Amino acid sequence: MTHNFGAGPCILPQEVFKQASQAVLEFNGTGLSILEISHRTPEFEAVVDETVRLVKELLNVPEGYSVVLLQGGASLQFAMVPMNLLAEGETAAYLNTGVWATKALKEAKIFGNVNVVASSKDDNFTFIPKDFEIPSDSAYFHYTSNNTIYGTELMTVPETSVPVVCDMSSDIFSRVIDVSQFSLIYAGAQKNMGPAGLTLAIVKDEILGKIDRKIPSMLDYKVQIDGGSMYNTPPVFAIYVSMLNLRWLKSKGGVAEIEKENISKSEALYKEIDRNPLFKGTCSIEDRSRMNVCFVMENPELEKPFLKFAEDRDIIGIKGHRSVGGFRASMYNALPITSVHTLIDAMQEFAEKHR
Amino acid sequence: MTHNFGAGPCILPQEVFKQASQAVLEFNGTGLSILEISHRTPEFEAVVDETVRLVKELLNVPEGYSVVLLQGGASLQFAMVPMNLLAEGETAAYLNTGVWATKALKEAKIFGNVNVVASSKDDNFTFIPKDFEIPSDSAYFHYTSNNTIYGTELMTVPETSVPVVCDMSSDIFSRVIDVSQFSLIYAGAQKNMGPAGLTLAIVKDEILGKIDRKIPSMLDYKVQIDGGSMYNTPPVFAIYVSMLNLRWLKSKGGVAEIEKENISKSEALYKEIDRNPLFKGTCSIEDRSRMNVCFVMENPELEKPFLKFAEDRDIIGIKGHRSVGGFRASMYNALPITSVHTLIDAMQEFAEKHR
Ligand SMILES: Cc1ncc(COP(=O)(O)O)c(C=O)c1O
Ligand SMILES: Cc1ncc(COP(=O)(O)O)c(C=O)c1O
Ligand SMILES: [Mg+2]
Ligand SMILES: [Mg+2]
Ligand SMILES: [Mg+2]
Ligand SMILES: [Mg+2]
Repeated sequence: MTHNFGAGPCILPQEVFKQASQAVLEFNGTGLSILEISHRTPEFEAVVDETVRLVKELLNVPEGYSVVLLQGGASLQFAMVPMNLLAEGETAAYLNTGVWATKALKEAKIFGNVNVVASSKDDNFTFIPKDFEIPSDSAYFHYTSNNTIYGTELMTVPETSVPVVCDMSSDIFSRVIDVSQFSLIYAGAQKNMGPAGLTLAIVKDEILGKIDRKIPSMLDYKVQIDGGSMYNTPPVFAIYVSMLNLRWLKSKGGVAEIEKENISKSEALYKEIDRNPLFKGTCSIEDRSRMNVCFVMENPELEKPFLKFAEDRDIIGIKGHRSVGGFRASMYNALPITSVHTLIDAMQEFAEKHR
Repeated sequence: MTHNFGAGPCILPQEVFKQASQAVLEFNGTGLSILEISHRTPEFEAVVDETVRLVKELLNVPEGYSVVLLQGGASLQFAMVPMNLLAEGETAAYLNTGVWATKALKEAKIFGNVNVVASSKDDNFTFIPKDFEIPSDSAYFHYTSNNTIYGTELMTVPETSVPVVCDMSSDIFSRVIDVSQFSLIYAGAQKNMGPAGLTLAIVKDEILGKIDRKIPSMLDYKVQIDGGSMYNTPPVFAIYVSMLNLRWLKSKGGVAEIEKENISKSEALYKEIDRNPLFKGTCSIEDRSRMNVCFVMENPELEKPFLKFAEDRDIIGIKGHRSVGGFRASMYNALPITSVHTLIDAMQEFAEKHR
């Protein structure tokens, strides 16, 4: 059994793979592969409907919000957000806490002014800034709730009266959130939601249509929402797999239940990192992410040997991002706690060998 | 056996479905599903490389062109093309031959001026205009080689000295083309290339970087090309299925061989439409498409009965688009000639019953 700690695309439940595999051969009694059906059929419209319904149910999305399924990744959202929300000459507030936050604010500069209200860049993004001001005339405030590369996570929403936009790509569906605190949430699906090729946006309807810019149809939230996520040909299979995965999450008791598992998983791993004399965490303890656990070896020369040691135990995907070095164990919803125990055992065994 | 005449997403070879289904369970000896692997691994980079290589080989792409895999559909290309190639105040020439051509020219107006050099809109797009002028100071000339909804196809490239851009979504890989006649070709994959969720662009490198516009990273051809189709997380599974499908096409002898089959298929069906007193074609005979065969019943009241008659024979996907009515039999590369014969037999039997 492989223990897949990959950062995204990432592990999904085995039952999802089985059902998805079956659907590629034959989908829902149609006699056809899901890859060859028309999206404009009752069978596939039901898939979109169920996916949207599950998102709304699992995240308790209130009235006044639309859930829309898109292509282009969170990276396209970096441009789509300011394209729709930031008028020329206006200023948006951005919190810079990592590589993805940096990319988001860079794209926004094409459309308007960007005010970086706080940044931990000079400290290699090892912490989340606190006590910063968000000017009340900001078009919106944007932050990245989980910094996938640096292993930090904001568990609370920074207080502000301006519309809040959040890149939740790597922690959406992992813990309970209050959608009413946001005007727009977006996420690439390929962590807790499904496979690569799909992007989710949750949009407060009233924030749209406020700026005077001609927006390409495909990049206009209103057009996509009015099109019911099928303004053009949607990423059929990615939506289907996401639906299966969200069904699985619901069957586990939903986000509140999975949050408990995620807390157990991350607490266990951080406990070992702190206890084990060979390893140490890289970021500020109060900002540690549950989804992406970043750590290094006290002795960097043991990094490669530990990677090999882990690989021999079928632990994969723990190599850290080049910006941080060391290791990054990504522990999304579908990663079983048994895999976390396997990693912990490996760390302990390795420490024994290198006392 | 189902005879899938769907317009896209559409039928793909059975062997492709089998291999894709298997890869969802376990991919290439990794012990992992293709849905959970990281795109930044040698295993998946090899998939991207092979897909690009097959495109280049199958279409004889010359030096000086880049092949790039994108998200967003051909519909996003409608905006991405002028965003990259049409400066404010410049004029691009568009040929309007159908619904998709209309949408493409509409998006271009956001970025610059659009000159519709000819249009068959007033005739419900039943023919391809000939003998039109393309001003030599046009930034580019854009046309849609196969009009999926109206069943017309341009088999030759309109003559012009300006850069030629072509939406080849519904006939790429179906017949031999000379890529050197184009500056940019784009296509949603979900007809002859693969499943929904992937878009192909073939770009003459020298046309890029000529205009003075700040382009979002994800929408900049140069950024995507330099990123090797992995500037961000690519649509992994859609690329993999496309690779399998292009391998199949190569195994059939490539585009020249499949073109022969496509000619046989379409000639057989048009022959029946013309011969059969109950049916007639809808577009000008010289502009008939090989990929999408549009026809109606002389007596419209027999449409629903024929749809049912066909469905009882497992013929699906022939209902015409609402703009045209009647029927549209889409006959992409993977549709076997036996399915065409089944449709022809059904038409003949139905005519017998309704003499
Ligand atoms: C927090 C965050 N934002 C954005 C992205 C970019 O997503 P995509 O590759 O889907 O564009 C990632 C990818 O890992 C991410 O982790
Ligand atoms: C010729 C043509 N262009 C563009 C499109 C739009 O493609 P997509 O839905 O992938 O955006 C289609 C879809 O059928 C098409 O046939
Ligand atoms: Mg980060
Ligand atoms: Mg320690
Ligand atoms: Mg058309
Ligand atoms: Mg006839």
